Amino acid sequence: MAAPTWVAVPDDSPFGVHNLPYGVFTTADRPQERRIGVAIGDHVLDAGAAARAAGAGTAGPEAGLLTAPTLNPLLTAGRSAWTAVRSLITAWLTDEAHRAAVEPHLLPRDSVTLHLAFDVADYVDFYASEHHATNVGRIFRPDGEPLPPNWKHLPIGYHGRSGTIVVSGTPVVRPNGQRRGAGLSAPSFGPCERLDFEAELGFVVGGPTAQGEPVPLAEAEEHVFGVCLLNDWSARDIQAWETVPLGPFLGKSFATSVSPWIVPLDALSAARVDPPPHDVGIQPYLDDRDTGTPPRGLDIAVEVRLRGEVVSRPPFSTMYWTYAQMLTHMTVNGASLRAGDLFASGTVSGPKREQRGALIELTWNGEEPLVLADGTKRTFLEDGDELVISATAPGPDGTRIGFGEVAGRVVAGPVLV
Amino acid sequence: MAAPTWVAVPDDSPFGVHNLPYGVFTTADRPQERRIGVAIGDHVLDAGAAARAAGAGTAGPEAGLLTAPTLNPLLTAGRSAWTAVRSLITAWLTDEAHRAAVEPHLLPRDSVTLHLAFDVADYVDFYASEHHATNVGRIFRPDGEPLPPNWKHLPIGYHGRSGTIVVSGTPVVRPNGQRRGAGLSAPSFGPCERLDFEAELGFVVGGPTAQGEPVPLAEAEEHVFGVCLLNDWSARDIQAWETVPLGPFLGKSFATSVSPWIVPLDALSAARVDPPPHDVGIQPYLDDRDTGTPPRGLDIAVEVRLRGEVVSRPPFSTMYWTYAQMLTHMTVNGASLRAGDLFASGTVSGPKREQRGALIELTWNGEEPLVLADGTKRTFLEDGDELVISATAPGPDGTRIGFGEVAGRVVAGPVLV
Repeated sequence: MAAPTWVAVPDDSPFGVHNLPYGVFTTADRPQERRIGVAIGDHVLDAGAAARAAGAGTAGPEAGLLTAPTLNPLLTAGRSAWTAVRSLITAWLTDEAHRAAVEPHLLPRDSVTLHLAFDVADYVDFYASEHHATNVGRIFRPDGEPLPPNWKHLPIGYHGRSGTIVVSGTPVVRPNGQRRGAGLSAPSFGPCERLDFEAELGFVVGGPTAQGEPVPLAEAEEHVFGVCLLNDWSARDIQAWETVPLGPFLGKSFATSVSPWIVPLDALSAARVDPPPHDVGIQPYLDDRDTGTPPRGLDIAVEVRLRGEVVSRPPFSTMYWTYAQMLTHMTVNGASLRAGDLFASGTVSGPKREQRGALIELTWNGEEPLVLADGTKRTFLEDGDELVISATAPGPDGTRIGFGEVAGRVVAGPVLV
Repeated sequence: MAAPTWVAVPDDSPFGVHNLPYGVFTTADRPQERRIGVAIGDHVLDAGAAARAAGAGTAGPEAGLLTAPTLNPLLTAGRSAWTAVRSLITAWLTDEAHRAAVEPHLLPRDSVTLHLAFDVADYVDFYASEHHATNVGRIFRPDGEPLPPNWKHLPIGYHGRSGTIVVSGTPVVRPNGQRRGAGLSAPSFGPCERLDFEAELGFVVGGPTAQGEPVPLAEAEEHVFGVCLLNDWSARDIQAWETVPLGPFLGKSFATSVSPWIVPLDALSAARVDPPPHDVGIQPYLDDRDTGTPPRGLDIAVEVRLRGEVVSRPPFSTMYWTYAQMLTHMTVNGASLRAGDLFASGTVSGPKREQRGALIELTWNGEEPLVLADGTKRTFLEDGDELVISATAPGPDGTRIGFGEVAGRVVAGPVLV
């Protein structure tokens, strides 16, 4: 059992000393100065200030990575630096010898403003849930095979728009676009009429690689810094009209929301579980069995609230493809990684109806409206709706690791013709 | 007629005083110091050094934008700064009064190393040539409609990988990946067997916009800084297997090559021509007719050389969608622009066989091999092949505006299992 922290942490806190997620914050008195923070209980540790206060004697060169305005220098530094910095912060928060120097740099968590924790380089969105892909296939191809023929051979993915990734709490403006009504030959233009969410996890990449050098499965952990929550807002009507032949574009690119806290992969050791078995032969480069490493499935319990009410509890442990398989596949063609790359899992959906991670599945493309406790009916999102995704995972010693949440409220868009 | 330059510029130079494309270079004696350069004749003007030498009296605050290691600060500054900086550089190179201060900062063009001129934010690739899209449709759907139903209603596009965009001259490593042979149910894995190029133009974006605020057609020029050449290397076999349902991913993401020189949109006034007429009703937000602005078609003559031999001359003037329509469509859903965004036209193909901008069209998916003058046959690219794309456009007063070239040689990839 790890040493207890000297910080007063509520028993049910998602941010115990085994978690220590990273974020970037500002305070009201220094609104221009972005600083790296680490969540602990109801506080945020000003990590750069703590590094300076703890002094050169205890803070190695890694501490300099904490004085940046984003996590990108830390992401660049790679796995050994991540381990060293995490050990350092753990020592600050558990060793009474550091308390006098470090305690002044604990700020009440509700007093800070949280920002996007890193500059996103490339953003890739996968499609790694068999239940989600099967549901979507059944909805759109009721008489065909639900999964495309390639689905079990590789983790399908596409590049999304990095520049419109926003932090939790940012309002989401309903997009305008072209969509074609059923049975019509020509499209119309106007506000999206089928606005949806997708509950996903995002994986934050560090330790850049060279172009032309694929990352094998055995090295995946060298490049996965941590995990966040992600809402892949989706305009289903715009997406349906544009998507053949080159995939999603404007149906997704208006906004993607992420949680402010990045949970280190190192905090998720107790959450590792075997992923579902593969029932189709797999190429050796993607074969994750018997590699001698801990399993790469993650027992993360996701929860989705719409207008304050829980509407889904997708279990991430049911994902067919692991983060390591996604990362290795993404680089097998020689594509390089940059610090700040972000890849998302795709909608997390479990086998049960109440585990579906998007409205298109929960309402079966609008055919079966969701009825909330107050009688409100929803097929897709309406202006004013708030959608909140949260998650927890097992931590060591019976603790829980919390991811915080990613929240977004839909607002009306500009009137265009 | 603009004032002549005091620089000795060969008559047939692609880089006359009406062009003044921007790039980023280093010299052998200062290999770590990236500097902004402007091509003029056989020289490169060290623009930052010239700004300092020309002094505060003649160089306004805009000159500070030239002392950066990339074009990104200039891109951020927006259209009015672009005009001011171009006027300033033109004055330096045409007014004898500046000659003594500026001339020491002209370096022989063949003495410098050219780099990627800007940090690429988001990269979007369009599909804007009717001839290319029709050819591809005929190859893959010989019995169906060649164009997808949405094609004439919107410029189809998708996001690509920014992190693997490389400057001309960078070797292109043949990607490995999954592909499925004709008639087989399971894929195999190995080096791409159908490696192709795509001759495209790229448009470099500046003047960032806010999320939720679409850019109307009338403001497109406020956000298009300039134009480069682009080779969208494509692994056709990998692409075919992965592309349904979410579009191109590993078939494209291993490498995209761009030319080092960015030709300012302001240098292309004489190249503006009416784009081809639209024969399908168009949504008002994309209607480019009768807007009172100069036409947005561009009479740019593209040339493709394989192993030193011209294999295609695609005319950019035949593109169905203009850069303004692409940019406006890309933002109509509220997606914001960042300085350094890059969007590409998609393969430029004209109506004639010898105007096709990719091997898949030139060889009709490998069925009709290309035979070079020395008897070499090609269906797709082999290791060692060099592919060079160049282009010119009309300049003022009967001059030609050159784009330089984007070159890349294919090299064998790593052996994976």
